[in-house]
Amino acid sequence: MKIVTFGEVMLRLSPPGVERFAQTDTLDMHFGGTEANVAVSLAQFGLQAAHVTRFPDHALGRAASGYLRKYAVDTQHIRYGDGRLGLYFLETGAGSRASRIIYDRVNSAFARIRPDDIDWESILAGASWFHWTGITSALSQGAADCLLAGIQTANRLGVPVSTDIVYRSNLWQYGRTPQEIMPALTAGCTLVLGSKNLFSELYGVVGSTFQESGRALMKRFPNVRYVTDTKRKSISASHNQLSAKLFDGETVYKSRIHDINPITDRIGTGDAYMAGLIYGLLTFNDLQRAIEFGTAASALKHTISGDVNLSTIAEVETLASGDTSGKLKR
Amino acid sequence: MKIVTFGEVMLRLSPPGVERFAQTDTLDMHFGGTEANVAVSLAQFGLQAAHVTRFPDHALGRAASGYLRKYAVDTQHIRYGDGRLGLYFLETGAGSRASRIIYDRVNSAFARIRPDDIDWESILAGASWFHWTGITSALSQGAADCLLAGIQTANRLGVPVSTDIVYRSNLWQYGRTPQEIMPALTAGCTLVLGSKNLFSELYGVVGSTFQESGRALMKRFPNVRYVTDTKRKSISASHNQLSAKLFDGETVYKSRIHDINPITDRIGTGDAYMAGLIYGLLTFNDLQRAIEFGTAASALKHTISGDVNLSTIAEVETLASGDTSGKLKR
Amino acid sequence: MKIVTFGEVMLRLSPPGVERFAQTDTLDMHFGGTEANVAVSLAQFGLQAAHVTRFPDHALGRAASGYLRKYAVDTQHIRYGDGRLGLYFLETGAGSRASRIIYDRVNSAFARIRPDDIDWESILAGASWFHWTGITSALSQGAADCLLAGIQTANRLGVPVSTDIVYRSNLWQYGRTPQEIMPALTAGCTLVLGSKNLFSELYGVVGSTFQESGRALMKRFPNVRYVTDTKRKSISASHNQLSAKLFDGETVYKSRIHDINPITDRIGTGDAYMAGLIYGLLTFNDLQRAIEFGTAASALKHTISGDVNLSTIAEVETLASGDTSGKLKR
Amino acid sequence: MKIVTFGEVMLRLSPPGVERFAQTDTLDMHFGGTEANVAVSLAQFGLQAAHVTRFPDHALGRAASGYLRKYAVDTQHIRYGDGRLGLYFLETGAGSRASRIIYDRVNSAFARIRPDDIDWESILAGASWFHWTGITSALSQGAADCLLAGIQTANRLGVPVSTDIVYRSNLWQYGRTPQEIMPALTAGCTLVLGSKNLFSELYGVVGSTFQESGRALMKRFPNVRYVTDTKRKSISASHNQLSAKLFDGETVYKSRIHDINPITDRIGTGDAYMAGLIYGLLTFNDLQRAIEFGTAASALKHTISGDVNLSTIAEVETLASGDTSGKLKR
Amino acid sequence: MKIVTFGEVMLRLSPPGVERFAQTDTLDMHFGGTEANVAVSLAQFGLQAAHVTRFPDHALGRAASGYLRKYAVDTQHIRYGDGRLGLYFLETGAGSRASRIIYDRVNSAFARIRPDDIDWESILAGASWFHWTGITSALSQGAADCLLAGIQTANRLGVPVSTDIVYRSNLWQYGRTPQEIMPALTAGCTLVLGSKNLFSELYGVVGSTFQESGRALMKRFPNVRYVTDTKRKSISASHNQLSAKLFDGETVYKSRIHDINPITDRIGTGDAYMAGLIYGLLTFNDLQRAIEFGTAASALKHTISGDVNLSTIAEVETLASGDTSGKLKR
Amino acid sequence: MKIVTFGEVMLRLSPPGVERFAQTDTLDMHFGGTEANVAVSLAQFGLQAAHVTRFPDHALGRAASGYLRKYAVDTQHIRYGDGRLGLYFLETGAGSRASRIIYDRVNSAFARIRPDDIDWESILAGASWFHWTGITSALSQGAADCLLAGIQTANRLGVPVSTDIVYRSNLWQYGRTPQEIMPALTAGCTLVLGSKNLFSELYGVVGSTFQESGRALMKRFPNVRYVTDTKRKSISASHNQLSAKLFDGETVYKSRIHDINPITDRIGTGDAYMAGLIYGLLTFNDLQRAIEFGTAASALKHTISGDVNLSTIAEVETLASGDTSGKLKR
Repeated sequence: MKIVTFGEVMLRLSPPGVERFAQTDTLDMHFGGTEANVAVSLAQFGLQAAHVTRFPDHALGRAASGYLRKYAVDTQHIRYGDGRLGLYFLETGAGSRASRIIYDRVNSAFARIRPDDIDWESILAGASWFHWTGITSALSQGAADCLLAGIQTANRLGVPVSTDIVYRSNLWQYGRTPQEIMPALTAGCTLVLGSKNLFSELYGVVGSTFQESGRALMKRFPNVRYVTDTKRKSISASHNQLSAKLFDGETVYKSRIHDINPITDRIGTGDAYMAGLIYGLLTFNDLQRAIEFGTAASALKHTISGDVNLSTIAEVETLASGDTSGKLKR
Repeated sequence: MKIVTFGEVMLRLSPPGVERFAQTDTLDMHFGGTEANVAVSLAQFGLQAAHVTRFPDHALGRAASGYLRKYAVDTQHIRYGDGRLGLYFLETGAGSRASRIIYDRVNSAFARIRPDDIDWESILAGASWFHWTGITSALSQGAADCLLAGIQTANRLGVPVSTDIVYRSNLWQYGRTPQEIMPALTAGCTLVLGSKNLFSELYGVVGSTFQESGRALMKRFPNVRYVTDTKRKSISASHNQLSAKLFDGETVYKSRIHDINPITDRIGTGDAYMAGLIYGLLTFNDLQRAIEFGTAASALKHTISGDVNLSTIAEVETLASGDTSGKLKR
Repeated sequence: MKIVTFGEVMLRLSPPGVERFAQTDTLDMHFGGTEANVAVSLAQFGLQAAHVTRFPDHALGRAASGYLRKYAVDTQHIRYGDGRLGLYFLETGAGSRASRIIYDRVNSAFARIRPDDIDWESILAGASWFHWTGITSALSQGAADCLLAGIQTANRLGVPVSTDIVYRSNLWQYGRTPQEIMPALTAGCTLVLGSKNLFSELYGVVGSTFQESGRALMKRFPNVRYVTDTKRKSISASHNQLSAKLFDGETVYKSRIHDINPITDRIGTGDAYMAGLIYGLLTFNDLQRAIEFGTAASALKHTISGDVNLSTIAEVETLASGDTSGKLKR
Repeated sequence: MKIVTFGEVMLRLSPPGVERFAQTDTLDMHFGGTEANVAVSLAQFGLQAAHVTRFPDHALGRAASGYLRKYAVDTQHIRYGDGRLGLYFLETGAGSRASRIIYDRVNSAFARIRPDDIDWESILAGASWFHWTGITSALSQGAADCLLAGIQTANRLGVPVSTDIVYRSNLWQYGRTPQEIMPALTAGCTLVLGSKNLFSELYGVVGSTFQESGRALMKRFPNVRYVTDTKRKSISASHNQLSAKLFDGETVYKSRIHDINPITDRIGTGDAYMAGLIYGLLTFNDLQRAIEFGTAASALKHTISGDVNLSTIAEVETLASGDTSGKLKR
Repeated sequence: MKIVTFGEVMLRLSPPGVERFAQTDTLDMHFGGTEANVAVSLAQFGLQAAHVTRFPDHALGRAASGYLRKYAVDTQHIRYGDGRLGLYFLETGAGSRASRIIYDRVNSAFARIRPDDIDWESILAGASWFHWTGITSALSQGAADCLLAGIQTANRLGVPVSTDIVYRSNLWQYGRTPQEIMPALTAGCTLVLGSKNLFSELYGVVGSTFQESGRALMKRFPNVRYVTDTKRKSISASHNQLSAKLFDGETVYKSRIHDINPITDRIGTGDAYMAGLIYGLLTFNDLQRAIEFGTAASALKHTISGDVNLSTIAEVETLASGDTSGKLKR
Repeated sequence: MKIVTFGEVMLRLSPPGVERFAQTDTLDMHFGGTEANVAVSLAQFGLQAAHVTRFPDHALGRAASGYLRKYAVDTQHIRYGDGRLGLYFLETGAGSRASRIIYDRVNSAFARIRPDDIDWESILAGASWFHWTGITSALSQGAADCLLAGIQTANRLGVPVSTDIVYRSNLWQYGRTPQEIMPALTAGCTLVLGSKNLFSELYGVVGSTFQESGRALMKRFPNVRYVTDTKRKSISASHNQLSAKLFDGETVYKSRIHDINPITDRIGTGDAYMAGLIYGLLTFNDLQRAIEFGTAASALKHTISGDVNLSTIAEVETLASGDTSGKLKR
């Protein structure tokens, strides 16, 4: 099975351990982006995963591709050109001290992407899934246009589409509002991750519960078959509790609650959930099992440094089945 | 507002992470000293903070000054001369294994300081606060003399004076007892941090409760307006609970209790409290808020490696207001 | 007092911190082996400890000896020859992610050992204790033969013998079963560490409780005076609870339960228990105190990276006495 | 253009910088093998390069594939199964101290390869070049058989074949001599790298000069169109001089002499030459230019840590054209 | 003596040692900018040095200030506001492999500076020297305007002004040419560093030798009293030869030639020369001595990692006097 | 053969690579002392070597012993007690920048040694050699007394004694001059390393050449059979030339000149020479071969980080025989 994802990949720079920016004189490098993170997860689960993006045509852009390839993502559809490499600086917190991100992604090579850079027809041919997020639509008109073309191609080819609609207000600097852009994109989706507040804010779709809100979303966008959301209780920067819900228009499936302590790296844990859920939907004929797989994948991601989940199917299934003991495997 | 602190600054050498001395072949460098730690904290809060000390006139002494300057402390009043750089070796524990310190500070350049090295009149002119601790008075006659001159100058100039009276019996090697030296120094203070046992041992001031003991101290030293103390419950080397009390002669203010888990670095957390409290007293017209600010500052310091608290006002206020969630800040 | 241990020592290679094999590009080096780990622990407690093994005659084999010597183990009886250095790759887990080991120990220089390589008579002369484990007997006929010769020599010289009978089914590749080999070896022992399931599987000795099973073992092997076992509750890879039991034919002694959180390194914690118990049996005239010392030693080992326990007697006794506070020692 | 290479890939473990095995407690990880090194070089030059090998089916085997993919090598034809990962330990020298290697590659997953593991027909379809070395033929009968099948398939498909005949006498442990195995393999080659001494020892082909020896080799193996060899003068471990010769049956082409100082990493420099030469033969219609490209590639490899040459075409061409200035590129 | 410098400071990110971008997963952090580098050098020589710039108002901008303060530069005139932190990525070469820089400085907080951000009157009051470079004038209209105001203020206050006119064509993106901007700025200078080619290109000032060209420049800009230039012979990325010339309108002073091998870090070596020369002009009444001091300072900078020269006066004078022995100082 | 050495061992702390004290925030740890360095070298050559010293009785003193044991030095005669661990801070230079040492060794546990701490009779029984240096005699009266007792015991037992008379004027703070102390110590020696200037300054022994001066020394101290000295030409901190002379009362033997480039670590290279020479005198019946072995050992030490020479006999002999090629050993 081949999965396609589309979006910006940034160089992440973070002080070692829990050092502060003010202290450090080295930075650890990772690469990540919400959609590429999904691709890496799925590649670890043994699926074919191709990520589509645009990098600057210099040694760091090439290194970003190398990072994805190392984790088994197909990089043949990546384009190279002008613009800079998007960056973000991450300071990892602990206990009562929060992690902090300084974004530095304006004017990236990805933001300069244009629809004719990408040949969706050939990329999506034979694909089993296409995934995008609301970050991409927020970055530039070119990115949003490119995305719309991708979703429409997927729809035409019968490739299921998923989205995490994440809304960050400090993005969206190119003169359009999410309310203008998101509905057309969401209309092509099969699976939508978002909260009822976001559904209300972006689509004017209202419901007093997760279920009602999901039902209203499905009414507005008839392609949507699944609505999902995660719930995180933040006891401290080192200790969280995580669970998820999935609604298929009939039933609300709820995952077990994972007690996550200590947290090694919180970034990309939502993407790990999404990847786990996609894997579950594609592989299991059991929505409860799919959501348990997704939340277990997300829980495991918290123990792994970097943006991407490097867990195997066996590890996820062990945890999904309720074995939290972390016993040494010889 | 300008704050002045006075005391020894040592080079701290510690194995990476929780390695033991017997294992390591590299040591992490930090610089710290109880009074300079207060200066750094206050500089991070945006106040002007000048530290007064004496370093050896070689590259490591200069590096110590550089460390303080990096964290925005004014180093223009630091003197350089003969003697060595005081050192301490710290092995950081975890869980049931305690942290350990090996001091190597005898014969330091600071211990050789003499009153005419320091021109207190010009240093304290225009200052808003002067802070010292019982460590300084324990190191040498020269340091104690120098300190007394500083306190007297502060008193003459109307600069409030605070002290943490910490008593370590293995210091005090220069032939005088704390009972001989401390009373005259404490007499000039506005704010005193210490326990009732210490008040009894050093000043013969007795009280069965924090409040009674504080009242007795104020009677003995009429300049003292505030008495404060912290309380730490050590569940393990990685998990502590912390709170503080403040008495103004009328009311005992008690902070919330901070549950601190995990602990990155416990050193300097008392100094972080003192700095937070001083900031609160200088800035808020609200003793409860001041003590909450001080304990939140101390709690945050536990998450930061090195002796000094690199928290910002916003971070401290978030925690002081009860938000312990450590949620990612984008 | 001189203690002799016998067994393979491997080079352990592990990614820094909790990195995964897929991510890392450096590996931390330690050396360890279940019997040598016991020797190191006992050397830290101030006893003379000599380890007997066989290394390849190259720079890494010499480095392995250097590692043991550094931690005060006598390496004069180590032999050098053909074969490779046994290796194991350890990926340290955290939270819900388990640690993993990839063994690469086949064809080691140790597995090629032959009885005439070792002059047990002179090595064990004057010794107070001899320790071996079921790993050694599983590696090769030569190792098993060598071991039998050692145990018989110890018995002849009146040197008490202990064993941890650990059974790993993926070892035992040389054509013999543990049921063929282990009984003769166990017959020479004074102290046996194992579970009732193992006693049943290896010796056909059955009992429904620890006590009954132990009594049956003592009946089968009259030399055995003490049977012991540890109990670990694995809440997560970072949080365990540990206790132990000791049976002397009359009474079952139970240790306190240690709550261990966080775990720095779980490897070698059983060996640390064994070493602590041996120390206790040799030094205290008090079985309860011995078992508390052993479990406290094991609990402390969890805080120390590498295979070996670098705790001092004072540290173990503090914890054995119930002080888990981990308070800073200046 | 697609290039195929075949051979073992080992995990290389080396102390940081010029540390000795006896000193270090971390090891840097690289992966390398003489044929895979050629594939990586060619992938850096923008060609498609697929490496065929067999790895153990565990996390380290997967990591080895990831390493190759990162540097743009196609890993789809890699097989996974039993056996261990071949290792080598490298201690890098400096000045008058030589570098040293401890090999630990016996019983690797690669040595267990069998001809029916590899479908040469489909792998070599459409390929422009196939490269192997004498290391592979030395490892096991299975590897030699597999190689012969590959060479024969390449010959049948008209794919040019190159070899570096490197002979290491301590390999060849499987009961056959190189004189038995190598001639049939070499017969299928277009390009052979070797010295006249080796030609004499392995094939009984004699000539008093490089040219005569090459001519004799071509007579013995009529498929051979090019014979090449490099010449290294070792002034110290940090300072070498390098050049190469190429004979096409008519003319001996000689490269310029590269003065290489300092040397960062000498491993894989012969492979870098071979890759550069292959690139030159495939791309330039000019043998002198090809050999200059090859030697410049090799010279640059000495400045790069690890086994593989990460130089770009532009970098190689700058040096091949005689610009040794190393001027900063902004 | 107080020196003022003005210009952008970037975060420099470079792989450890001579690793390539494609390989590394950590980056070393330094901060640097051609003018700030001069300030740091002069501060190391014991002068007061204040740098004027504008940083983003976030933790990395604050860290940049901390870096300058650590090395004794006065940061009180630094402004904070919107915009990003300029970055550059440096890959350090060796031998025949050149170092490479990827700039990422567009849209920096500094480029957004405006004249009314800086109160030159108070900053330059009492200053002994003001230094700027052609980089600043190339970044934005605001930076160029700000600079012109600074030079004019310096001229009015009688503060000598120096410049390094460095011209990089890929800067200058704001719609003005250097020919439009540079003459007015250069007119206010006392000391100009540049080549005769640059003088011709930027000012249309022509001369067939350094002396003639310098004389022509002085005719065009009567304020100019000194013209200087350095000469570098690049034998390899690790081995350079360096010398300098200084013309005072009458005599051409030539420095000795420094043979520099090995090179640790070539960045900032021109700035180190400029700082050394300024120090010499301010301190010695001897132009030959000044130029020897400048070139020795530059030669020493090649041995120091980062952009800034951390040499002391004593070290520079030892080398300037011809002692290149590098003998251990105890 | 058993060798005994006596003297202080210090903790050496140095920034990584060629970083400056002002820049670094980690320090590499080594332990070393001129006499212990000789012991380690000899232990690497396979001799039994015991070092006698006195360490503080804390974890760092124990770690110092562990460091010596790791390199096969017998530490059973080391004493533990009050006083601090002597330290030195080393900044390693490169090219024209000299290395620098800041000593911090006053009041060390070793300086507090007293003659009755050491039982020379049993330590020197059966020894083949005893080595000391002028550093020890300079540290304290106790150290000098202890040393005299050792030399006298060695003389009585017929154990040959060697010394490196190194004179550092900033030591000798305990009220005695070297002229008072050194003659009685030197009188007991067989082999003396020193320059004719030192012979003149310390013993009033004069000669215009190495030979004449040596002859005069032998006349003054009839026990002396060999006089030796090394000659170093310092081209830069990275490039030295080294040779040595040995005089046996009849002939002056001169070693070849070693061109050493690059230098990894210059510390302890004199001690490596001394150890090599002692080994040569004890093992070869050929003074020319002995001095070639000594200088080759010293040359190799320059390539090894830390104070101690970790070269093997085979490595030294390769270089002593004139093979400087540093060719890779597989």
